[in-house]
Amino acid sequence: MDPTPADVRIAALVIERLVHHTPVLRSRRIDAWAGRNVWMKAEHLQRSGAFKFRGATNAVWSLSEAEARRGVATHSSGNHAGALALAAYDRGIRCTVVMPAGAVAPKRAAAKSYRANIVECEPTLEARERSLAAVVADTGAVEVHPYDHARVIAGAGTSALELLEEVPDLDAIVVPVGGGGLASGTSIAVKEVGARARVVGAEPAGADDAARSLAAGHLLPQDRPETIADGLRTSLSPRTFRMLSAHLDSIVTVPDDETVAAMAMVWSATKQVIEPSAAVAVAALRHLDSAEKVGVILSGGNVDLRNLPW
Amino acid sequence: MDPTPADVRIAALVIERLVHHTPVLRSRRIDAWAGRNVWMKAEHLQRSGAFKFRGATNAVWSLSEAEARRGVATHSSGNHAGALALAAYDRGIRCTVVMPAGAVAPKRAAAKSYRANIVECEPTLEARERSLAAVVADTGAVEVHPYDHARVIAGAGTSALELLEEVPDLDAIVVPVGGGGLASGTSIAVKEVGARARVVGAEPAGADDAARSLAAGHLLPQDRPETIADGLRTSLSPRTFRMLSAHLDSIVTVPDDETVAAMAMVWSATKQVIEPSAAVAVAALRHLDSAEKVGVILSGGNVDLRNLPW
Repeated sequence: MDPTPADVRIAALVIERLVHHTPVLRSRRIDAWAGRNVWMKAEHLQRSGAFKFRGATNAVWSLSEAEARRGVATHSSGNHAGALALAAYDRGIRCTVVMPAGAVAPKRAAAKSYRANIVECEPTLEARERSLAAVVADTGAVEVHPYDHARVIAGAGTSALELLEEVPDLDAIVVPVGGGGLASGTSIAVKEVGARARVVGAEPAGADDAARSLAAGHLLPQDRPETIADGLRTSLSPRTFRMLSAHLDSIVTVPDDETVAAMAMVWSATKQVIEPSAAVAVAALRHLDSAEKVGVILSGGNVDLRNLPW
Repeated sequence: MDPTPADVRIAALVIERLVHHTPVLRSRRIDAWAGRNVWMKAEHLQRSGAFKFRGATNAVWSLSEAEARRGVATHSSGNHAGALALAAYDRGIRCTVVMPAGAVAPKRAAAKSYRANIVECEPTLEARERSLAAVVADTGAVEVHPYDHARVIAGAGTSALELLEEVPDLDAIVVPVGGGGLASGTSIAVKEVGARARVVGAEPAGADDAARSLAAGHLLPQDRPETIADGLRTSLSPRTFRMLSAHLDSIVTVPDDETVAAMAMVWSATKQVIEPSAAVAVAALRHLDSAEKVGVILSGGNVDLRNLPW
């Protein structure tokens, strides 16, 4: 079942006391740079450093006691790993993360610091899925997919819900698109509050499977992504493709050099550490046709400080 | 005249609508790392990116109309330059900044972006003072010294005033010490609110003139400072030496490697961009004898992102 607008509202209630109600930031320099008024939803300040904690928490706390006792498992090279680990830690249950070699160092460290059991594997989708299947067979853990999961999507949508409660009359909300969970959740959140905001996806030019799939009208997986936005290298799933086909208003692709410039601009203007995936959405702010009042979801801030893209 | 505790209260009223009431940040990771509960006053989010804007604003808006018409001038390689430029811009008066070659690039750019007139000079104190005297003779501008100035010191103290309004029962407040303006202002702010907090200075080991001066009982200027904390290379003035002798509870010196580690810790745990001078005070948190509840002033966030110390 695809999640509904009401599921976003339910998710907001489920996770209310477990997540940070993140601030919405303004900056005159960013406004001038983007050529519009910008409200930045600061999910890099979310627990675990990314919006992913919302969906992970919604999934973990929606489990029955019997399910929870089996623990949770996922495969992820990124923010979902740390988010699920922390959500499981909160609930006091086991978490196993299958993580490919080559994950961004602080993202690996985060999952470890939240006591997840890390299982390393080769950096291919096949190896990940095989390893995860083995973990599930071994431990009976409940799989929580990073985005192809109704409660994860509904949880992701709660960020836009909060943003629209604070700034109801936005013309558009820009969100980064990797697997499409945040974009899907945001598009149904807008419907839940009856806002007029358009939802605009932002994708790296070097991992533009969503733009190509939506243009073609069928799912085109991403192979060989080439982008510094390590959180956006994944492909849509049939579920997120279906949801974005129905609800996404438009999608913008951004070359990496613009992402790097946007990232540096946000760091220096706002003193906020955002990761490349978040900067993709900021860069997209300069590509909108119209829209005076725009929200953007700063999706995360987990960066390898020793390996910056400038 | 040295500023009094009441002058900090007056400054808070003068600058109230012109400065940001900056947030106070908490982080469990920082608490664990420091071994105590830490409240971080986020002056890197202040206008112009540093607490310096408080003192500059207090000085600029305390001028009579006749004085203001003459404009203001200063010599500074750092945050005071941008702060004074922005304060002058707010009031609609001219600002000239004498800036030595070798200033941190974004600090120079900030002063320029706020429309200051920049006069370059050799990077010696003598050259700075000579150039500034020439500017004052030429234009009749009112000099606003970066720290040896009663209203600048009183303005700097308003940060601690806000911090203590939010967290009244701190055991200590740690502040970085360069010229001693922030430490002086903080020490009288504590008296103004009748707080029991000790005021602890934090100085780079490679620019420890305040620690040496306070130990010796007389002013020992800093020559050849060697530290990455570009904001803390200056010497105390007779005024700040006098105030710190009377009011500062203790002073800690921090080697640069600890400053770099503290800076990286704050960036990764809180996603906040703080500059090395601010990180000196964070590093000092691990050197306190006692004190369970500690405030620290994150003095600024103006960093050259292309030239990070790790």
